[in-house]
Amino acid sequence: MKDAEDMTYCVAITTQKGLVFCSDSRTNAGADMLSTYSKMHVFCPASDRMFILLTAGNLATTQAIISRIESELEEPDSKVNLLSCRKMVDAAKYINDINRDEQTKAQATTAASKIDTSATLLFGGQIKDGEPAIFLMYSAGNFIAAAHETSFLQIGESKYGKPILDRIITRNTSLEDAARCALVSMDSTIKSNATVGPPIEIMVYETDSYESNHYLRLDEDDDYLRSIRQSWNEAIQTAFAELPLLEWEKRTMQPAATNIHPIIHDSHNN
Amino acid sequence: MKDAEDMTYCVAITTQKGLVFCSDSRTNAGADMLSTYSKMHVFCPASDRMFILLTAGNLATTQAIISRIESELEEPDSKVNLLSCRKMVDAAKYINDINRDEQTKAQATTAASKIDTSATLLFGGQIKDGEPAIFLMYSAGNFIAAAHETSFLQIGESKYGKPILDRIITRNTSLEDAARCALVSMDSTIKSNATVGPPIEIMVYETDSYESNHYLRLDEDDDYLRSIRQSWNEAIQTAFAELPLLEWEKRTMQPAATNIHPIIHDSHNN
Repeated sequence: MKDAEDMTYCVAITTQKGLVFCSDSRTNAGADMLSTYSKMHVFCPASDRMFILLTAGNLATTQAIISRIESELEEPDSKVNLLSCRKMVDAAKYINDINRDEQTKAQATTAASKIDTSATLLFGGQIKDGEPAIFLMYSAGNFIAAAHETSFLQIGESKYGKPILDRIITRNTSLEDAARCALVSMDSTIKSNATVGPPIEIMVYETDSYESNHYLRLDEDDDYLRSIRQSWNEAIQTAFAELPLLEWEKRTMQPAATNIHPIIHDSHNN
Repeated sequence: MKDAEDMTYCVAITTQKGLVFCSDSRTNAGADMLSTYSKMHVFCPASDRMFILLTAGNLATTQAIISRIESELEEPDSKVNLLSCRKMVDAAKYINDINRDEQTKAQATTAASKIDTSATLLFGGQIKDGEPAIFLMYSAGNFIAAAHETSFLQIGESKYGKPILDRIITRNTSLEDAARCALVSMDSTIKSNATVGPPIEIMVYETDSYESNHYLRLDEDDDYLRSIRQSWNEAIQTAFAELPLLEWEKRTMQPAATNIHPIIHDSHNN
């Protein structure tokens, strides 16, 4: 059985200029119960801070997490909330605690059934006087931050879309290139896994802006999504056609000998 | 814990002109016990037939499978072997039976420990008067053939290398392009998963030849592997640089309005 997290793909990228977040919107409870829910949640509780949360996993659990974050923001006597934390790592600890807590509640509530109520989160943003940061919160209850060498974090069905991120993303990548790369990574995932699907949401955060600078929500038939898909597909075909020739293709032009053979289990010549 | 099969990547491609097989050679029993074993086995028991078997999973089990196939070829009174079967599907049933049988034996032998003794196979080839064919044999004990719409089969760590196959491979792809595509697919996998590694073996079989037409064994520092890697990496960077501009990049040249905004949980403006 597939984990609930495999039916989602989200990626967060950190560069010198800011952050990029991208998520799909397909939610399913079985192959005949597909629906659309945004997995991107933006919190702007004050002008000195901005947070983005991408969610994968059980929808009831992730909705409980969002609703808890919101309600604790509105309670003036909350011990900790997104307004009271002073550093990004404190905000991450707060969100991670909520994730662990809501997962525990969901497991207790649904103990009689065997459904997977786990959730995995990507959380990022910036608080004034600190750097922007992104974090990955595992369903197991612990979390990691992106490091200088690791400029992106993924949750859900992450493997199909990883090679292009590996090849393109560094700390020096521009925010626009990072956004395009996230889209290509998402498109490769959608092409390979039917449980990941549009609309695709993409959010660009420029360092020290404390607001959502650029946001796109791309439906299946969106012109830009279509143009980036077609352009990428054509470019891949062109790139592919220019790869160096294999030894035996060259040999038709200039004969050459080879001594390499596979290990053949050749019983009829023994 | 990772399945043994995740520490391997093999792909088989079927086109109008023939078959392509590609495998890595890394075997590990723990991160500090890496070694190199070929996962590509070629059987040429008579001039009217040719078979290739790629193996993933427990090394003891896959070695037992190969050794059983070999020894049954040498027993003149074997009820069934690769010499006696008349169609590719019969050969596939024979190999699949051996896989199931050797897995059962291995499970019984190692019952006291908790090691994973399963094996997954890609099998292909051609028997005279029939078409070339490829099959995927699951560790569960059943198997599938490639179909007209599904021109490639993968075992092991298959996700990283699937997008490029999805974009390039059709029944009309030339054998050389299919071989190059298998190499790019393998290279993307090696880049993303440290437990998949060179030497890379690649075998090209031309329909009706009944022999191993082209075989390459590419070490880490092989010139061709290096040139295909470099060429692909540069082409991807170029392709990427030519993707269409995002809305807000164009806007610096020609202002335009947008009404799309994310759902913002904006409590400080309430």
